[in-house]
Amino acid sequence: MKQISGGVCAAKGFQANGVHCGIRKNKTKRDLALIVSDVPANAAAVYTQNLVIGAPNTVTKSHLENGVARAIICNSGNANTCNADGIEVAEKTCDALAQTLKIASDDVVVASTGVIGQRLDPTPIINALPELIQGLGDHGDLAAEAIMTTDTKPKEIAFEFTVGDKVCHVGGIAKGSGMIHPNLATMLVFITTDCAVSSQMLQKALSKDVVDTFNMTSVDGDTSTNDMVVVLANGLAGNKEITACGSDFDAFCQALNAVTVWLCRQIAGDGEGATKLLECAVTGAKDLPTARKIAKSVICSSLTKAAMFGADANWGRVLCAIGYSGAEVDVTKVDVAFRSAKGTVTVCKKGAGIDFSEEKAKEILLEKEIDILIALGDGDGNATAWGCDLTYEYVKINGDYRT
Amino acid sequence: MKQISGGVCAAKGFQANGVHCGIRKNKTKRDLALIVSDVPANAAAVYTQNLVIGAPNTVTKSHLENGVARAIICNSGNANTCNADGIEVAEKTCDALAQTLKIASDDVVVASTGVIGQRLDPTPIINALPELIQGLGDHGDLAAEAIMTTDTKPKEIAFEFTVGDKVCHVGGIAKGSGMIHPNLATMLVFITTDCAVSSQMLQKALSKDVVDTFNMTSVDGDTSTNDMVVVLANGLAGNKEITACGSDFDAFCQALNAVTVWLCRQIAGDGEGATKLLECAVTGAKDLPTARKIAKSVICSSLTKAAMFGADANWGRVLCAIGYSGAEVDVTKVDVAFRSAKGTVTVCKKGAGIDFSEEKAKEILLEKEIDILIALGDGDGNATAWGCDLTYEYVKINGDYRT
Repeated sequence: MKQISGGVCAAKGFQANGVHCGIRKNKTKRDLALIVSDVPANAAAVYTQNLVIGAPNTVTKSHLENGVARAIICNSGNANTCNADGIEVAEKTCDALAQTLKIASDDVVVASTGVIGQRLDPTPIINALPELIQGLGDHGDLAAEAIMTTDTKPKEIAFEFTVGDKVCHVGGIAKGSGMIHPNLATMLVFITTDCAVSSQMLQKALSKDVVDTFNMTSVDGDTSTNDMVVVLANGLAGNKEITACGSDFDAFCQALNAVTVWLCRQIAGDGEGATKLLECAVTGAKDLPTARKIAKSVICSSLTKAAMFGADANWGRVLCAIGYSGAEVDVTKVDVAFRSAKGTVTVCKKGAGIDFSEEKAKEILLEKEIDILIALGDGDGNATAWGCDLTYEYVKINGDYRT
Repeated sequence: MKQISGGVCAAKGFQANGVHCGIRKNKTKRDLALIVSDVPANAAAVYTQNLVIGAPNTVTKSHLENGVARAIICNSGNANTCNADGIEVAEKTCDALAQTLKIASDDVVVASTGVIGQRLDPTPIINALPELIQGLGDHGDLAAEAIMTTDTKPKEIAFEFTVGDKVCHVGGIAKGSGMIHPNLATMLVFITTDCAVSSQMLQKALSKDVVDTFNMTSVDGDTSTNDMVVVLANGLAGNKEITACGSDFDAFCQALNAVTVWLCRQIAGDGEGATKLLECAVTGAKDLPTARKIAKSVICSSLTKAAMFGADANWGRVLCAIGYSGAEVDVTKVDVAFRSAKGTVTVCKKGAGIDFSEEKAKEILLEKEIDILIALGDGDGNATAWGCDLTYEYVKINGDYRT
């Protein structure tokens, strides 16, 4: 498996584009993305678990019931959620795109991100369709840009892998930033592959994958109403279709995981206002759910996040977050260390503080990527969670998001 | 029932004091508090549910097994938690105080608050005991001051009430600020009363009360390791001891609740870096647990808290927090309004946005006390939760707490 360029267009038969259609006032900001497969693709998706569900999510869910899709259209700047005519607007968008592309309306995945509760006028979207479609090509980068909200940089990645004797490709783009929190989807992620996978196995791969990737990623503990992860597999790599578990399925899952882990790290590191990517690696838990609970709890602790912003080795807050995680854990066995490119410093052994160099700890914590290492000495359950520090900028962004 | 002055010294037979003993470097900051009852008092307590438990909590829990106490000693500046000799230090403190006061060591409640994982040297505490005891008197205010950490103001309150034909008093002090979050205790609160209540009924009253008061108060979602609420009842009001449910017990519970609700509001409004007190009142839930879940979820949402800081009527975030609360709720029935001294603005009806004056909303949200009113139209479950906004200052305080 090797990393390649091309994002969602790295896989054969996928084209993309991103334009400014006018939902956002800033004309230099692209706000409409399109990804199209040359042929019908098997599709799988996971959605937000928030009970308040964005209209686009409802429409997409119904369109994907048959496990097939051809196109993904996504706007930023308005979530089309909590509006009386939300479903209608989302369907109108799908219909217009389907008509222009000459495909079935239920082969369209529709997604929106932005402010909740303001009516989305579909007119700018519909008017922009000719330009959007005409510009389709190897432009995954433009699509990645068009789905951004408060993200500071587009997020795209792709990998090449083999299934049997066939070379396959899988690539993805993501929109992250705020409202990123464990429990399903929690952001917009679009993944394409030319690997031939049945829609059933595609769903299985995705559902399994998100548990340890997107569900272990948190920016602020808020779960959004609109988030989804969609995978399209068009089969153009020519491998024997994966219809069951086995080595081919494993190879696909591994490649998918390379994409999702990379995107999770990007999403966490580019969390609203973030200056640091935090990775919390828990080892030695009595079981996997315990490891996951603890890793998530630490990555979500406002106090730990603020301490990391201040490069303060305040490990008591890490221990505290372990203690209220809800996991059963023997705190007298817990070791904690901080690690970065500058080295590793152990700060707590068997649940108690040990002498360490504050100077060394500061040097380590001033880096941009910090690992919080927690060893529980209680079994072989391991889990990793990703998050970011809590900063002035987060408060600033969210104090006046709508203005 | 009427509000009176005196705090923890409002009840007959209680004296208090607060001094600077030297745990904190700043000599103008009192860091040691003492509350003493002239006679043995019945005692009840609730403690943090964090699995990492402060040494003082462990010692206090064991001392209160017999339901009786005479004195409360509390230091700020060091939590005495996650230290190998924590229990020993806490016991040494109790022993020294008991010896000087000529009471039993297990009649002492000990509490600590401050940084975790740094050894607490008991010497300054022990050396300060003569001064601390000599100064005992009507000094609940000094005790309230001495338990503060990043609190910006001391918190004390008292009420007068009657049980039968006897006038009783109940008063309390609290230390709040960071790490304030639902699920037990979550801060230091000391309450005294001269009402005669059996320790069993005292525990019943307290345990019942905290569910809708301290457990519904959140500053940052972090539950501390050291927090406790302790009530001492010395019976000097002379009423017939309350040993069972009935109108006397109800009168006591009501007075206790007046103290705890006032302290909750103070703790929330003085949360770390807070500029606003937020009260979330949920009505019309299908049952009480649903109402509580939703009120807590909204008050804990970082995005809602940041929006309130920015006086931004971004009600989508409120709806979003309702949606991920874990409560079963029909979002198409939800109404949301914001209220303050400047008036009320309804922003969402039946789960959808309605037209409202942004100008009026801004005026309302610029106030220091904001009510978020959520009507679910689904039953008669009501609950209230208290919190605060998320500000630059919170990040600043917690980015360099130890330095």
